[in-house]
Amino acid sequence: MDFDALFDAQLDQLKADGNYRYFAELERKCGKFPKAANHREEGVRDVTVWCSNDYLGMGQHPAVIAAMCEAVERTGTGAGGTRNISGTNHDHLLLERELADLHGKESALLFTSGYVSNWTALSTLGSRLDNCVILSDAGNHASMIEGIRHSKAQKVIWKHNDVVDLEEKLAALPADVPKIVAFESVYSMDGDIAPIREIVEVAEKYGAMTYLDEVHAVGLYGPRGGGVSERDGLADRITLIEGTLGKAYGVVGGYITGSASLCDFIRSFASGFIFTTALPPAVAAAARTSIAHLKASSAERTRQRRQVARLRARLDQAGIPHMENESHIVPVMIGDPVKTRMLADYLMREWDIYVQPINYPTVPKGTERLRFTPSPLHTDEDIDHLVTALEVLWAQCAVSHAVA
Amino acid sequence: MDFDALFDAQLDQLKADGNYRYFAELERKCGKFPKAANHREEGVRDVTVWCSNDYLGMGQHPAVIAAMCEAVERTGTGAGGTRNISGTNHDHLLLERELADLHGKESALLFTSGYVSNWTALSTLGSRLDNCVILSDAGNHASMIEGIRHSKAQKVIWKHNDVVDLEEKLAALPADVPKIVAFESVYSMDGDIAPIREIVEVAEKYGAMTYLDEVHAVGLYGPRGGGVSERDGLADRITLIEGTLGKAYGVVGGYITGSASLCDFIRSFASGFIFTTALPPAVAAAARTSIAHLKASSAERTRQRRQVARLRARLDQAGIPHMENESHIVPVMIGDPVKTRMLADYLMREWDIYVQPINYPTVPKGTERLRFTPSPLHTDEDIDHLVTALEVLWAQCAVSHAVA
Ligand SMILES: Cc1ncc(COP(=O)(O)O)c(C=O)c1O
Ligand SMILES: Cc1ncc(COP(=O)(O)O)c(C=O)c1O
Repeated sequence: MDFDALFDAQLDQLKADGNYRYFAELERKCGKFPKAANHREEGVRDVTVWCSNDYLGMGQHPAVIAAMCEAVERTGTGAGGTRNISGTNHDHLLLERELADLHGKESALLFTSGYVSNWTALSTLGSRLDNCVILSDAGNHASMIEGIRHSKAQKVIWKHNDVVDLEEKLAALPADVPKIVAFESVYSMDGDIAPIREIVEVAEKYGAMTYLDEVHAVGLYGPRGGGVSERDGLADRITLIEGTLGKAYGVVGGYITGSASLCDFIRSFASGFIFTTALPPAVAAAARTSIAHLKASSAERTRQRRQVARLRARLDQAGIPHMENESHIVPVMIGDPVKTRMLADYLMREWDIYVQPINYPTVPKGTERLRFTPSPLHTDEDIDHLVTALEVLWAQCAVSHAVA
Repeated sequence: MDFDALFDAQLDQLKADGNYRYFAELERKCGKFPKAANHREEGVRDVTVWCSNDYLGMGQHPAVIAAMCEAVERTGTGAGGTRNISGTNHDHLLLERELADLHGKESALLFTSGYVSNWTALSTLGSRLDNCVILSDAGNHASMIEGIRHSKAQKVIWKHNDVVDLEEKLAALPADVPKIVAFESVYSMDGDIAPIREIVEVAEKYGAMTYLDEVHAVGLYGPRGGGVSERDGLADRITLIEGTLGKAYGVVGGYITGSASLCDFIRSFASGFIFTTALPPAVAAAARTSIAHLKASSAERTRQRRQVARLRARLDQAGIPHMENESHIVPVMIGDPVKTRMLADYLMREWDIYVQPINYPTVPKGTERLRFTPSPLHTDEDIDHLVTALEVLWAQCAVSHAVA
């Protein structure tokens, strides 16, 4: 059987739809963020990165870099085993304690990524709690969706951020089955924020456990970076808070926090936790330093907020429509994959501005967009340069008429 | 609903069965491998680690450490995004080229772990190839099993390493459905090696694709560390070779290699590849250095083989039964979880020897064992010390009579 032909047929379809993905090849350079070198066929050029999820530039923070190098030189480059078989290092436990403290929980458990933490925690809960029903927000991330699917538990989807719909669905379920309400705080593609308090209240009313993904909020919201649940004083009412070390904290890895029993349960039964090499101790050490820094310092958050507000204001002045939300994410809707790519290509080629076109399956078809993530390290000049480029583009292509 | 009570009930059952896991807390110390500090309630003690999967000690190799620190200082601590959204770094592409070359394939694709590479590659293949049937060796790793399950493709399990059974099962399937034969080269818990040539021949006869997990073989077998498939000159006949960067290469991460179309297919459609932060460029740089070193140097492999042979010979002299196999893994079967833990605890407490008791679900119930992995850095004295300890134990407890 000609397998390559089968693969190519599906890839050709993707290309025909305009959904084939070209990755930009970057070289991050310490101390230069948000600038990076971009390797293209024609050569290497310095560009300004406008779509990084290293939201605060912590991946280039001197203290985080120093912590990682110190730990590499002290412990080596890897953990040497799964957590059970020789891979649990002192640095992992220190990080887990830091994470539990960050969210005010008894325990925390580290995973190789945020994706794996969602996938394996939800699949373990859903499959091991008898008759469990998972009530999943319609906008939930792929890692949660796959975890729920893998669990084979009954799944009920409620309308995005719609507490009335959630309550109707909770009320329709038998009182005695375990229920998990799974949702995110900041939704990364629209930048909207969940009504956490209302969700928690409804969940409590029906005795449901709450599962909150704070991946795009940890480090960024709350006085210590504990996420929107910290900002709103609700962390103690959420059963499980999940997060990543790979976005605002600038490293890699994921985690859950919750009661000691909950974390021990996942630790003991979760395939994606058990059967995989632990993160390098140096990754844990770097992440811990980043978390500790952002617990004590709000300067990065404050400056980020300023630059986000500035970009929005400049876009408004220029008449460039962008989605309103109360987060740090600035989406400019285009609504067509080919057009979105054209715009991004043009920004890269003519303006040395890198913003990845966001297409299906990351967002629903027809909602393709450019998604800007201003950081504390983007200067006012960077913002002016971006908005000028967009203004020229909007005038040239009259794209503005085509967008909602 | 009292969720903690539900969790505790299952944890109590685990404890009653003797299957509850206690992780040893270690501090790896550069240049000291296989020695590490073990944190216990009573204090910290230096122990000899006998169960690491940093099989060759590359996680503490000066060149690998230097490469990681250099890259951290050059690029920072994280990738800054998913591969699609600003996370593809020059170092990732250099590593993917190195991996393709290692296995003599057109392309390679990097994942956050070997677990994720298996899970997401198999689930993508199984779900996107119409009517696909996956023929899975009965001994396959959890990451493959979960990937196959997640794909919802038809699954046929063939008897472990049994080519006759595989052929019967292939012959029973319709000629025109896509078939994937999924297996490992070195099985990590028994240390036995698959009859790769026979499997490939049968697969070719029935037009099936071959999916080979070389996680416990890369770096260790073959003149350049390309695994058992390289050693046996069969790599070009395997459709997809999967491996890890977290065991013999001493870092963390996973990958697949194969045709350009195959890798592009997985790159384009695999949830577990798309929706997750890329590995830090520094992890990629360290892994590439480790791979390049073991391509050129066989000294580590030669010395490891010597120490494995020495341990086996000394165990034979001492009359301590161990499973025969032709790999670097030396399992000593105990067959009971409580007894295995007692032995391991005793070795740790009285002899400063750390070997993790291996229990369910890592191995089937009733096959609990101690699993020793001699490295090139274990000295003859380390081996003598281990065998002396086991001799004393065997005499004291007369465990020997209880084991097969
Ligand atoms: C909401 C959400 N959850 C989880 C993840 C996965 O986290 P990680 O990148 O650490 O795998 C992502 C993005 O990658 C995300 O957007
Ligand atoms: C056969 C096999 N495949 C895959 C894996 C997963 O690799 P990783 O540790 O890189 O996640 C393991 C062990 O962890 C394994 O034993």
